[in-house]
Amino acid sequence: MFITKYFEEFAIGDVRHTYGRTITETDIVVHAGQSGDFFPHHMDEEWCKTQPFKKRIAHGTLIFTVAVGLTADHINDVSMTYGYEKLRFIKPVFINDTIKVTVTIQDKKDHKRPDHGLVTELVECFNQHNELVMRCEHILLVKKQAA
Amino acid sequence: MFITKYFEEFAIGDVRHTYGRTITETDIVVHAGQSGDFFPHHMDEEWCKTQPFKKRIAHGTLIFTVAVGLTADHINDVSMTYGYEKLRFIKPVFINDTIKVTVTIQDKKDHKRPDHGLVTELVECFNQHNELVMRCEHILLVKKQAA
Amino acid sequence: MFITKYFEEFAIGDVRHTYGRTITETDIVVHAGQSGDFFPHHMDEEWCKTQPFKKRIAHGTLIFTVAVGLTADHINDVSMTYGYEKLRFIKPVFINDTIKVTVTIQDKKDHKRPDHGLVTELVECFNQHNELVMRCEHILLVKKQAA
Amino acid sequence: MFITKYFEEFAIGDVRHTYGRTITETDIVVHAGQSGDFFPHHMDEEWCKTQPFKKRIAHGTLIFTVAVGLTADHINDVSMTYGYEKLRFIKPVFINDTIKVTVTIQDKKDHKRPDHGLVTELVECFNQHNELVMRCEHILLVKKQAA
Amino acid sequence: MFITKYFEEFAIGDVRHTYGRTITETDIVVHAGQSGDFFPHHMDEEWCKTQPFKKRIAHGTLIFTVAVGLTADHINDVSMTYGYEKLRFIKPVFINDTIKVTVTIQDKKDHKRPDHGLVTELVECFNQHNELVMRCEHILLVKKQAA
Amino acid sequence: MFITKYFEEFAIGDVRHTYGRTITETDIVVHAGQSGDFFPHHMDEEWCKTQPFKKRIAHGTLIFTVAVGLTADHINDVSMTYGYEKLRFIKPVFINDTIKVTVTIQDKKDHKRPDHGLVTELVECFNQHNELVMRCEHILLVKKQAA
Repeated sequence: MFITKYFEEFAIGDVRHTYGRTITETDIVVHAGQSGDFFPHHMDEEWCKTQPFKKRIAHGTLIFTVAVGLTADHINDVSMTYGYEKLRFIKPVFINDTIKVTVTIQDKKDHKRPDHGLVTELVECFNQHNELVMRCEHILLVKKQAA
Repeated sequence: MFITKYFEEFAIGDVRHTYGRTITETDIVVHAGQSGDFFPHHMDEEWCKTQPFKKRIAHGTLIFTVAVGLTADHINDVSMTYGYEKLRFIKPVFINDTIKVTVTIQDKKDHKRPDHGLVTELVECFNQHNELVMRCEHILLVKKQAA
Repeated sequence: MFITKYFEEFAIGDVRHTYGRTITETDIVVHAGQSGDFFPHHMDEEWCKTQPFKKRIAHGTLIFTVAVGLTADHINDVSMTYGYEKLRFIKPVFINDTIKVTVTIQDKKDHKRPDHGLVTELVECFNQHNELVMRCEHILLVKKQAA
Repeated sequence: MFITKYFEEFAIGDVRHTYGRTITETDIVVHAGQSGDFFPHHMDEEWCKTQPFKKRIAHGTLIFTVAVGLTADHINDVSMTYGYEKLRFIKPVFINDTIKVTVTIQDKKDHKRPDHGLVTELVECFNQHNELVMRCEHILLVKKQAA
Repeated sequence: MFITKYFEEFAIGDVRHTYGRTITETDIVVHAGQSGDFFPHHMDEEWCKTQPFKKRIAHGTLIFTVAVGLTADHINDVSMTYGYEKLRFIKPVFINDTIKVTVTIQDKKDHKRPDHGLVTELVECFNQHNELVMRCEHILLVKKQAA
Repeated sequence: MFITKYFEEFAIGDVRHTYGRTITETDIVVHAGQSGDFFPHHMDEEWCKTQPFKKRIAHGTLIFTVAVGLTADHINDVSMTYGYEKLRFIKPVFINDTIKVTVTIQDKKDHKRPDHGLVTELVECFNQHNELVMRCEHILLVKKQAA
């Protein structure tokens, strides 16, 4: 589970795929309870029937949380999260939709610390109809291999 | 709880402050259970003792979730989330730290849809020592008032 | 979120309405886990089919908890809960029912502490068919304005 | 677990005692998540330090829920809850306090349905210092034995 | 709730039956969150459709946990769990299946400590179609009555 | 994450080690809520002070659940669980203990289905003092490689 993968070893274009996960009503209720966001978009089925999307929708922070969690399958001990960019919620996720994530190495850049570089992973989250529902760029700060 | 606040009504520099919330061990355990991320950074006190930060730390997605949730105190029915930019986890959040959030209107821009504009909120999350632990920019797509 | 509203400022007949919330199977399972009440009325779909109400029903304490929670939208720092009276569970709440609460100022009385008074709020909880499912009286101990 | 105990079989003065339960930080966090009440009294350790009670306190609805749950050890199939009276939260319950409940048959009355009567149970909830923290009266509607 | 039942008082062939419990989607999601097992058998409805069992199935450890929990209705203060044997998951349990447990005293044996004996309870868990879904043998170490 | 490992590929004596996990108060409270087992051994700190073990202890089914979950890091699509034997809870696990699991291939046997064999994994769960707290034998039914 622990791996050591240096900056030089990341190859632009490399892709990995995660398991899928069905987003359940339970996930939404638990997420409301964790975030404190009980807006009727997520919690009031009757109100949602009067809205364009017709049904309760998952919180954006839930989809981000599950998508990032799905990608967490090993620990690279020479890498850490630098941040996220361009996080977009493109389509609503409804109860019983199943999402999975594709991670693509998109970019590599130098960093001001000369022994580290920045790796950009494109994180794309799809539903069961292969529609993109969320996307973001995950920036990793990765050690370079000793010279 | 429902308000109507048009693009023109957002003033750059306006600030609002949220309640605080203590990040508990429960929050971390529940977040592991929701995200599926059981990495030892969050779940293994013994392993953490051997690391530079010495103690279990909150998941980044937990801090983002709670910070966004703390700001969710009303619904503006002419506004929706467009996305997030420059999400950074600046300092670790430990069990029993208390966080609160400051939201500052940072920028306003036109959008390709002429009846809408983009409002950028700077979201800054501080711990009980007034140290910045997380920051991001929340982009809102907001309707303009009928001409 | 913090307000200051003195005894004199409460007007009998004033009404406020909350958001709605759909009572989910998750809420019932979580409530069983919190209360320790796993009676088959709440947890055994097969047994419920043999009973007059035919389906699993929400715990009374769950409906009371959610109803009170729905009303918790601000903090009046000169008021505290004195108690509750005449709590009645009038109709069963089933999984997927949506409840909302109406709070009406019903009564005002002096208290033995001359600088405080008692305010009675009538708390009425309705389902999506506008049927009253729960009601109680919430007694508040509220400071009087300095003379 | 199912018993049959008619109105005539309840004796004023009869007492039963429940197990104890330690009220944990987890209980409070889960209860906030179920009720939607994230007031700083329950969730913000730093703010609580500035208040008279100094520490986070349990929600009233949590104590009521656990107290009622502790008493739920059998099902009397000729009895149902009619309602609750005089619910009072007498002392705050803090994280790590342990509560237990004493139930005393306090009163018996006729009901307009001649084949039923009302039984009043006094429900008293004590902490580990034997201080009364909550009390209420639980009214049961109980069938009378066939004549 | 506390009883005292010595080794001599257990009679081979004695049977007790528990309440039933419907296994909900919530139970599975909470169990994934507690165990850390997010395998698609439990969490990915779309993947399950491609498998012989067609639907998400409960974790074995969930069924074992609920089955053992259903039997926990009193505490025998002269008995403790010695272990479990021959735990088998015979049929899958699906969301909305209702399980209940039958416990039969199957065997009694001496133990090397002469003042204790071993009692074997056969624990059989059935679904709503009276199909055996899980079984195990629960070995108890029970004090003998003072000679 | 999906692998294909046939009966012939299991070698007696092979060992794997899992991550560790700290057993938190939250885990115990959540497990009580899932199992329905609220015995004072797990839930009543005051009562536990009067017992030989002095502190709340984790449910056996919790330790089994977490131990099995820790080992669930990949899916072998030619293997399934046949059952568990000799499950023993050797020492109590207290709040804040950290457990990890060692899995050793202990035995291989033929099965009546000639194209399958039984593999026995010894599952040993240790606390932070390297004391064995739980052990069991996990029997796998594994396909043999096509002849």
